[in-house]
Parts: sequence; C-alpha cells; structure tokens
Amino acid sequence: MQVQYILELLGTGFFAISGALVANQKSKPDWFGVTFIGFITSIGGGSIRDMLLGVYPLVWVKDPNFIYAIIIGIGLSSIFFKSLLKLRKTFFLFDSLGIAMFTIIGTEKAMQHHVSPVIAAIMGMFSAVMGGVLRDVLTNEVPVIFRKEIYATACLAGAIAYLLLDHFGADKNICMFVPIGLILAIRIVAVKFDLSLPKFTKEA
Amino acid sequence: MQVQYILELLGTGFFAISGALVANQKSKPDWFGVTFIGFITSIGGGSIRDMLLGVYPLVWVKDPNFIYAIIIGIGLSSIFFKSLLKLRKTFFLFDSLGIAMFTIIGTEKAMQHHVSPVIAAIMGMFSAVMGGVLRDVLTNEVPVIFRKEIYATACLAGAIAYLLLDHFGADKNICMFVPIGLILAIRIVAVKFDLSLPKFTKEA
Amino acid sequence: MQVQYILELLGTGFFAISGALVANQKSKPDWFGVTFIGFITSIGGGSIRDMLLGVYPLVWVKDPNFIYAIIIGIGLSSIFFKSLLKLRKTFFLFDSLGIAMFTIIGTEKAMQHHVSPVIAAIMGMFSAVMGGVLRDVLTNEVPVIFRKEIYATACLAGAIAYLLLDHFGADKNICMFVPIGLILAIRIVAVKFDLSLPKFTKEA
Repeated sequence: MQVQYILELLGTGFFAISGALVANQKSKPDWFGVTFIGFITSIGGGSIRDMLLGVYPLVWVKDPNFIYAIIIGIGLSSIFFKSLLKLRKTFFLFDSLGIAMFTIIGTEKAMQHHVSPVIAAIMGMFSAVMGGVLRDVLTNEVPVIFRKEIYATACLAGAIAYLLLDHFGADKNICMFVPIGLILAIRIVAVKFDLSLPKFTKEA
Repeated sequence: MQVQYILELLGTGFFAISGALVANQKSKPDWFGVTFIGFITSIGGGSIRDMLLGVYPLVWVKDPNFIYAIIIGIGLSSIFFKSLLKLRKTFFLFDSLGIAMFTIIGTEKAMQHHVSPVIAAIMGMFSAVMGGVLRDVLTNEVPVIFRKEIYATACLAGAIAYLLLDHFGADKNICMFVPIGLILAIRIVAVKFDLSLPKFTKEA
Repeated sequence: MQVQYILELLGTGFFAISGALVANQKSKPDWFGVTFIGFITSIGGGSIRDMLLGVYPLVWVKDPNFIYAIIIGIGLSSIFFKSLLKLRKTFFLFDSLGIAMFTIIGTEKAMQHHVSPVIAAIMGMFSAVMGGVLRDVLTNEVPVIFRKEIYATACLAGAIAYLLLDHFGADKNICMFVPIGLILAIRIVAVKFDLSLPKFTKEA
C-alpha cells in the first residue's frame, strides 16, 4: 500500500509536469494557467473515474499531498524547463510509464467497487487518459485520444491483461508489472513504427 | 419495465450509431475514436443527469449490456455505413425518436427522485441533449443545441407535456406516447418549415 | 442565513445576466441558447464544487428558486440589453462582486464538509470561476481563466484571506467582507493598471 501511495504521488507530480509542458507549447499561459492545467491533467482522470463510480471523497480532496505533488511538479518544470523539453525521449518514456501506472491503479480501484470487468477496464483507461482529454478541451485542442498513435487503446489492452492475470490468480506483482510492461511496449512499438489503428471508414 | 429496458438499450445503441456517423463526417477518426465518441454520445446525457441528481450507480456502470449495445451499434454503423448515410430522412426520424424517448425516460427518472417538476423537465431535456453536447465539445464543434433548429426546446416541451399529463392523472401509456409524439411533431415541423426560435437580440 | 440565501439568489441572477451578455457577443444564439448559457454560467461553479465534494442534493436541484432567478436574470438582460452593455464599468464591478461573493460562500461551504484549508481555497475559487470556464468551453472560447488579467488568482487570494481570518477567530462579518473587499481591490487594480501574472516561460 505504501509503495502504491508513493507511486501515485509520483505519477501525479509527473502528470503535472507533462500538463505544464504541453500547455506551454501553445498558449503561453501565466503561472496560474499552467498550474491549473497541470492540476486538471493530473487529477482529472482519477476524479472522473471516482465521480462515475460515485466513490467519495475524491483522493485529492481527502489528501492535500496530491496538491503539493502537483505544485512541486510545476515548480520543477519551470526550473528545468529547457532540459525537460530536450529530453523528449525520456519524457515520452515517463509519460507512457505514467499512463500505464494510472491504468492499472484505476482498474484495480474500480474492481474494488464490484463493477464488471468490462467496466473496470473502461475505468482504468479513463483514469489514464481523461486528464489529458480535459486538458485538451480546456485549451481548445483536439483531444489527444483522437489524434495520437495508439494511446488509449494501449491502456485498454493493459487493463484487459491485468484483469485476465488477476482472474487466473496470478501473483500480485505479476498482475501489476506485466500489464505496465505491455502498455509501455505497445506505446514504444506504435511510436517507433508509426503504427495507428485502422480508420473507421475507408473512403477518407 | 421490461419494455422500457429494451427501449433504453435500443436507444443507447441507436445513439451510438448517430454519434459514430456525426464523428466520422469531420475528423475521420480511427476505430477507437469512433467507439469513444459513440459511447460518450449515448451514455453522456443519462450520466450527467444521474451525476447531477447524485443517483448511483450509473445505469451503464451497473449493467454492461449498455456497453454491448454501444459496441453493436458501432459495428452496425461500420457495416452499413453507406446505406445509413443515404437514409438521411430515416436517420433524422430515428434521431428524433431517440431524443424523444430519452427525454421522457429522463423526466420520469428525475421525478422518482422527488425533485420539483421544473427540475424534472430540465433533467429530461439534459438526458436527451447532453450526450450530443459532450460529443460536440470533445470534437471541437459548436454544440448542437446552439446551432440546430428547435432541438432542445422540443425536448423541454415534451417533458412539460409529460409532467402535465402525469399531474392530471392520465393513463401511463398516454403520458409516455403523447409527449414522444409531440417532440417528434415539433422536430418534423421545425425542420420541414425551417423554423427556429427568435434570436435573443434584434440587431444581429 | 437569510441574508446569505438572498445574496446567493442575487448572485445567481446576476451571473445569468453576465453569461447572457457574453454569450451574445459572439454567437448570436437564440433564446434557448442564451438561457442555457446563462444557466451553466450561474450554477456551473457551485455544481462542480458540490460534485467534487460529493455533496448532494445540488443547491438548484433542491430549490427551484435558483432556476427562477436565472430566468428573471435572462429576462432583464433582454429588456435592458443596450443599457447593460453601455454600463461596462458598472458591469465589471458587478461581475467582480459576483465572483468575490461566490468565492467566499464556496470556501465556507467546503470548510463545512471538513476538507483541509488548501482544498477549501481551491473549492472557493472553483465556485467562482468554473461556471465561466464551462460557458467558454461550450461556446468554443479559450476559457476566461487563461486569458484575463488576474482573475482566478484574485479569488484564490480572497479565499486564503478568508481562511486566515477564520483561523484566527475574526468576527463573522469581517471574515466575509474583508476578503470580498480584497478580491474587488485586486480586480480593480489589475484592470486599471493592466497587471497580469508573470508568464510561465520567458522565451515567449
């Protein structure tokens, strides 16, 4: 539990960095705007999951450490702004690690509230991607899930892997780390080979 | 109850088709994007209603059949894509039938939670139109309720008719089918004669 | 309590006027569109606060007087449309008074649900600005909090002032009116001297 808590705080801080960097590319917002977007990006996915499940209080409402993790993340992204932008590859790895972790944590949380596996997989994927969707809606962008190479689909695949492993009684650590590895692998392969899902219609 | 359940599943599947067709016109999304938009379009209105009322669990969270209805709807809209686009008139009829049905179901559900009639009418209208509003916000369109000919207003009128009939003790079937007919009639007349509500200001 | 209730109703009606005027500048919507936007602008912030806290029923769901206040506000903004647009300075004062009042009421409500002060301050600020954010997202504008001179930050400062005064046992009225004065003062000074927060990055 302790480890999961630290991972969640780290993930939250990292998502704030990710939100700050993305927000800054386009609209050159002020400090408040960047912090607000970082906040929405990091807590949006989990909040939507819990509000859909009716699970209260929300994690960050109960525990202000998540707010502090976000503020620290924003501070770091200001101090190391240029280095962070240069480290694009590392950044991509961290972002993928972040969504992978949030997917599995979210799927697990949903299962604890006795929903069916198909709903748990959706909730896991929502935990990972909805923060980014809110960020994009607020900054008038086309949401990431509609433009990126295989992104939310990788989360769905990881959530399903988690549920299968859990169903067949695999070890707790295997349930956690195999799906995270799978999401990472799908993301890396998709970006490296520029793969994307087939279009819905062919006449495009 | 059984009939209402089947109608809700059918309505959900149909809204997914409607969402998929609309989504596809503009942004040519991949399969995941189309499914996601179909999902948001069909469950968005009811979810917003229940989250505003604090009624948990949400219908589709409790019952994965709604997810399967959406997936079947998306599958059908891929297979019959060209035919569906050709059937614009039929399509318009189905869409109007869909919002009419969702309005009445939503108004009834809100009344079961002992809100005042004015709130029940708003909740009925939200059930019908908010899925489309979410869809439009996510795809960066001006929401349907701001551009279309008499749309949400028809739902409001239907909800009010339902509440009046119910208040004066009309038969259950009359309470259901007269308002659905009214919404259909308003929509058909509005589109046929290109009617719209007066603008808020005159100097436009 | 009676005074706070009347202030809330007045604030709600005024926010509806504000929403109607802003909505009208761009998209020239019809009567339904204006009413819908006025509605979202006035009840959006408080609803998001209560949905994040899990506090049900929402104020306007329980008490339709808030709906009537909005309808009256929209009616007044239609009748006095030209006068209202001319009174820009008065309008700015009313808008600032509105967000100041909503901030303090929101912060107080959050404290009543035993959240930590940092969360209460965020909830107070959300109460004041999230209605405008929803309005801007729905009308495809860049949300007000990303473009305006010091706006949400003034609310945050007011919320913190409220929490400090309350913590040190200041008189109820002082807790209420000093922060409202502070928010007003920050807004007036910021607009008069065209002040804004520093940009997040310097190379812009």
